[in-house]
Amino acid sequence: MSQRPKILITNDDGISAPGIIFLSKVASAFGDIIVVAPDKPQSGMGHAITINSTIRIQKTNYHQSKIEYSCSGTPVDCVKMAVNHILDQKPDLILSGINHGSNSSINVIYSGTMSAAIEGALEGTPSIGFSLCDYSLEADFSQAEQLINQIISNALTHKMPNGICLNVNIPNINSSQLKGIKVVRQTKGNWVERFEERQDPYGRNYYWLTGEFVNFETDAVDTDEWALSNGFISIVPTQADLTAHQTIKQLKYFEV
Amino acid sequence: MSQRPKILITNDDGISAPGIIFLSKVASAFGDIIVVAPDKPQSGMGHAITINSTIRIQKTNYHQSKIEYSCSGTPVDCVKMAVNHILDQKPDLILSGINHGSNSSINVIYSGTMSAAIEGALEGTPSIGFSLCDYSLEADFSQAEQLINQIISNALTHKMPNGICLNVNIPNINSSQLKGIKVVRQTKGNWVERFEERQDPYGRNYYWLTGEFVNFETDAVDTDEWALSNGFISIVPTQADLTAHQTIKQLKYFEV
Repeated sequence: MSQRPKILITNDDGISAPGIIFLSKVASAFGDIIVVAPDKPQSGMGHAITINSTIRIQKTNYHQSKIEYSCSGTPVDCVKMAVNHILDQKPDLILSGINHGSNSSINVIYSGTMSAAIEGALEGTPSIGFSLCDYSLEADFSQAEQLINQIISNALTHKMPNGICLNVNIPNINSSQLKGIKVVRQTKGNWVERFEERQDPYGRNYYWLTGEFVNFETDAVDTDEWALSNGFISIVPTQADLTAHQTIKQLKYFEV
Repeated sequence: MSQRPKILITNDDGISAPGIIFLSKVASAFGDIIVVAPDKPQSGMGHAITINSTIRIQKTNYHQSKIEYSCSGTPVDCVKMAVNHILDQKPDLILSGINHGSNSSINVIYSGTMSAAIEGALEGTPSIGFSLCDYSLEADFSQAEQLINQIISNALTHKMPNGICLNVNIPNINSSQLKGIKVVRQTKGNWVERFEERQDPYGRNYYWLTGEFVNFETDAVDTDEWALSNGFISIVPTQADLTAHQTIKQLKYFEV
């Protein structure tokens, strides 16, 4: 490649979160980076976009990049804003994260990090969402640096299938314990929720959404949950077609 | 069935929108309805959940239902709150909508209406999201009443595949022009966005997200876009597995 690749970077924890600072540093070895990321935490925003209110952007200086904006919108807004408004040409690669916390299994549909990557793939650009299975703000992202380098390098070298992005989850273990990388499928699972009820100082109830993840297929060995609990980084090729193709014939009784 | 079915109703346009008022009226002929819906418009919220702030609920009286709450959260929060906190037992059916505007093709991933239905399916309950391809608040939902009745009746009579919900879109035409119902797949398509730039009274720029939908497969005859533009209600069986299964083998070069 005669020119250095253009790499767009975003996340859902906000433009100054340690995970995106680490990712932009790693990515800058591979190309010219552009950062457009939320101006505040946007975890759990899924594929939300801002259509009922306005969006603002602001030049910032958290990263070693020539083009850098914080954006008042969601992670998906950030990708749309970067690709359709800020940049003159499409980026060669879009990276999202590194998320503070797992986006394996069903978490993918709630994840702002992964929705940004899915949006990138929809825009026709190879995209990768990275997540570390550690919710702590002091998480150590460097443990998997070598394998993250390898994934970015592979994504720039090989042509990815069109419309597909990668959901990369990194187990929270030391580099010496990391066994490698597995390309796997999304585990079937769900959250069992509990709404924690509290009272405000004025006697009115309010709630915090909490819950426990339940793995529906603990015996499967081709899933992201299996890979993560066995010391591997998991990569799930991810796309935006939600059709349950195998059930179309079965549901023909709805036709008239 | 000895008891009347329990039907949970939600939407993303807000608990008092004409679409949900119409849907709860139609559904009440089939069972006892419970309404838990957003206290304000939540269009474009996708699968967002509220984890960085608190959630409140409030008893309301917009519908002919014994149990009815508005909720400060997203459509997905509404389903989680209803199923895990408000109700003693799982509902028999979850209905979301009727949305003011299309949720066909790629719109499904941005749609709060459909995310509520997907969440219902994840909770193990047969779920349907309804959308009318008319963004007007004065939209006429009654044109398709007979076919909506038929879909609800079918969903209560037949056992739906587990984890699947239905994405039902209704074309904006008179009942005399409606040709029937087709069970189809999600059309490949995308939005080409434009950010409309304006200035606030203080000289600072802000943006509105606008755009045009582009159908990537105008020749296909087994898609929701085809059904809608040919006078049919489209039903797409929809699920939350985002894995691009067909590409897993192809991407094994990422493994180490």
